[in-house]
This record gives sequence, structure tokens and C-alpha cells, in this order.
Amino acid sequence: MRTLKITVAYDGAGFSGWQIQPGRKTVQGTIEDALTAIEGRRVAVAGSGRTDAGVHALGQTASFTLTNPLPAANLKKALNRILPAAVRIYDVAEMPAGFHARRAAVAKTYEYRIHREETCPPFVYPFAYWYPFALDEEAMIAAAPLFAGTRDFRSLAANARGPRQERAEKSTVRTIFSSQLTRRPDRLVYRVRGSGFLYRMVRNIVGALLEVGRGKLKPSGIPALLAARNRGLAGITAPARGLFLVAVEYDNE
Amino acid sequence: MRTLKITVAYDGAGFSGWQIQPGRKTVQGTIEDALTAIEGRRVAVAGSGRTDAGVHALGQTASFTLTNPLPAANLKKALNRILPAAVRIYDVAEMPAGFHARRAAVAKTYEYRIHREETCPPFVYPFAYWYPFALDEEAMIAAAPLFAGTRDFRSLAANARGPRQERAEKSTVRTIFSSQLTRRPDRLVYRVRGSGFLYRMVRNIVGALLEVGRGKLKPSGIPALLAARNRGLAGITAPARGLFLVAVEYDNE
Repeated sequence: MRTLKITVAYDGAGFSGWQIQPGRKTVQGTIEDALTAIEGRRVAVAGSGRTDAGVHALGQTASFTLTNPLPAANLKKALNRILPAAVRIYDVAEMPAGFHARRAAVAKTYEYRIHREETCPPFVYPFAYWYPFALDEEAMIAAAPLFAGTRDFRSLAANARGPRQERAEKSTVRTIFSSQLTRRPDRLVYRVRGSGFLYRMVRNIVGALLEVGRGKLKPSGIPALLAARNRGLAGITAPARGLFLVAVEYDNE
Repeated sequence: MRTLKITVAYDGAGFSGWQIQPGRKTVQGTIEDALTAIEGRRVAVAGSGRTDAGVHALGQTASFTLTNPLPAANLKKALNRILPAAVRIYDVAEMPAGFHARRAAVAKTYEYRIHREETCPPFVYPFAYWYPFALDEEAMIAAAPLFAGTRDFRSLAANARGPRQERAEKSTVRTIFSSQLTRRPDRLVYRVRGSGFLYRMVRNIVGALLEVGRGKLKPSGIPALLAARNRGLAGITAPARGLFLVAVEYDNE
């Protein structure tokens, strides 16, 4: 029995998120179906974490075990032949027995794109949050690094996880290694790298940054917002379509 | 009564092409519906030309008349509020009475994207022809300019126009002002500017270039192919999803 890790990109628009749900088209379910076709028995896939409906991935990871002896490079090709074009396997790697994509992850990077042009190109719209209205971008850029550090991020966790809420999420302490908002010619790009993220935490950080941009929240108010550990104090949750899971890191890579 | 010209970008994936067809979702029909909602009576829109199902546009143009006095800038905003995100109005311009987007056009530019990476990013797939196989790209680049000039392009016209074939297309002589294939890091981009194009002509040129890339057709064979004025001699029609109508030009602009 081999243990394998895959690196996957997907356009989240057509999926009800990563995690398998009965009667819904999900990324995990789509990948499990493809592996099942290759293996000849049901293959269960463990993602590095879930992504919500509409959230995209450039480098999501997942692990599974397989008896099929197909070399990794051929397995990648076989999977990409079976999978829809909206889901692409970029890498298949042999891992030590017991490797688990979620438990072994040491860092994740997300990116959030806020498109700033007056008119949003049709080709960009599914992959960004189009926000053409006035924003104090300098204040947002100044506020972004204030989310870095090790702290209790309860203020930025969603209250509900939906039908399959994970009760194991006891600690709400996380470490954010870097948190930067950058101005590009046509958009704002928020990039955050951390040890892990609470449910909807990145979209809630972006929501808070948008509140800063609108003048509803001062950058100096962010430490107090975080210290309050009360979700009610933070702003809106930014839409899923602007969010990309960029990379998941492991030790010894 | 005002005569107006709009410049429109669209993601062609969700449409059965530009031209209105009963029971189909088309770009023209979608724009006419939006204008009809604003005008309060049916508004007919004349495009600079049709694009096939799946073909995209960065700068398609269309003309129509309107009694509604809304200033052009406001009309643009009103249209973009009504239209789906896959169709975006970039410009609304007042034109002299009698202006017609197709009859007044003096040049059109198309772009065709051939994606060359081994794995096609999910975000690129709907907007390119993914071709990861071996191609003699140098031969293709050398062949591309051979399509320029004024000549009878019958060899590169599709035989059938489908259910609404236009019978007026008598002359198959066109002028191609420039025809270039360029290598980008991850793709080949073909750009062609001409006085006008026959049905599927750009996709047939790209099909011929792909035949050159596969070694099935020599660049030196292109003049003979064009001179034969026989569609049967040319290659395949490249897929719609790689094609973009980039711009339509008019005099006095």
C-alpha cells in the first residue's frame, strides 16, 4: 500500500466546496471518483483542509493510499485525463506511510483578489471580488500587517460551519507569519501565510480590511478587535470567489 | 432618435454565440433584452459581426437607436447593472444617424491563444486551446505572416454557416494587414488584423498553423493552399474557446 500526496488546482465556481456532501458536486468527491476509477475500489482522500463553495485553489494538497502500482508521473496523467478541466493535478508524490495532508501541514498561504477597475472584465469576474467603489487603500495596506502574530483569532472565526461543523476545532489560537496587502495596476491582492486558519478567517480578515477602506474601522482599532475575541465586532465576510488557497507547506520539503 | 455604438467584452462560454437564435442564450439577445428594459420597447442591436458559440470578445462593437435620453456614461452603468457579469459594456458612444457597426467597420483584430504548458490551469482552460503536444513552433512563427495580403481566402472559409447562413457573402476576397504568431512563456498567441474575415477564417488559419507545427504542412505550402481556393485542402478548425475578438476599428477614431 502506497501513501501519496497530490497538489491540486481548481476553479471553485462549479463546486459546492471541497468536502464531500451527499448529492452535491464537490472537489473531494470528484477526485475520489477519479481515483476510484483507477484503483477499482473506493479511495478516500484527505484534504489539507476544506475550502468553501466558490473558493479556488492553486495548490491545495490531499493524501490517500493506493495499491495500484502506476508510477507517480503516470498517475498524474491518468488523473488529469479523468478529471474535469476545472480540477488539475499538478503533482503526485510518494510519502511515508501514515502521512496525512491535514495533520502534517505546517503552513498555508491564501490570496484574496479585490478587483478595482470601474468595469470588471468578464474573464476576471469569477476569480475576484469586484469592488469599484471608493476605498482608503493606504489605510488598508497599513492595516494588513496588524493581523500577523500568534493570538486568539476568535474575533475572525465564523460562528457556524454549516451542516458538517467540526467540533474538534477547540483552540482558536493561530500564528500568522505574514499578512500583506499589495496594490497592483488593476487590483488589491491580500496574501496571508499562517500555521492554520479558522473557518472563514481569511475572508473575515479581508472583510475587516474593507471596513478599514470604507473608514468604518481604523487600523488602530484592529488590535482591540482581535483582543475582544468576539466575532460580532468584526465586519462582513468577503465573497468566496476572490479567495485562492495558494500553497500548503510541509516539513522536509 | 439617437444612434449609439457600444464596445462589449464577453466570456463566450455560456452563450450560443453572438447572434439571436430562438430558444438559445446569445450575447446579442442578452444585450437586446437589457436595452429593451431601459427603452421600454424592443431594441434591435446590430453587431460588427457574429462570433460563434464559445468565442470570446474583448472589444466587440454593436450599434442601435434609442429614444431614451440617458447620457452615454449613465447608459453604460445602467446596462452593466442589468447585464450578467459575463457581458460587460466598456464604452457607449453617440454616433451620426445611420451608423451601422458592421457596415462601417474598416478593420478587425482577433487573437487566438494556444496554451503550451503540460498541465492547463483551470483558470486558463476556458480561454485557450490547450495543446501540450510537440509542435515545431519556429515553423509556425515563420508561417504566420504568409497569410497577410489581399487575396481570395476561400481555402480558409468554412463550407457551412449553420442554420442562419448568410447568403450575401459573395466575395471571399479579404485583406489581412498583419498576421503574427508570438511565443509567450506559457502560450502561443496568434494575432491577426484584417479588413474582414470569412466565417471561421481565423480558426481555420490557426488550424493550418497547427498543421505546420505538426509537420503535416510546410510553410512553403501555404501560398499553394491559399491559391487553390478549396477549403478541402486546409486543416482542422481550431476550437472556439481559444479565440477572442479583440477590437473593431472605424474611420475617424
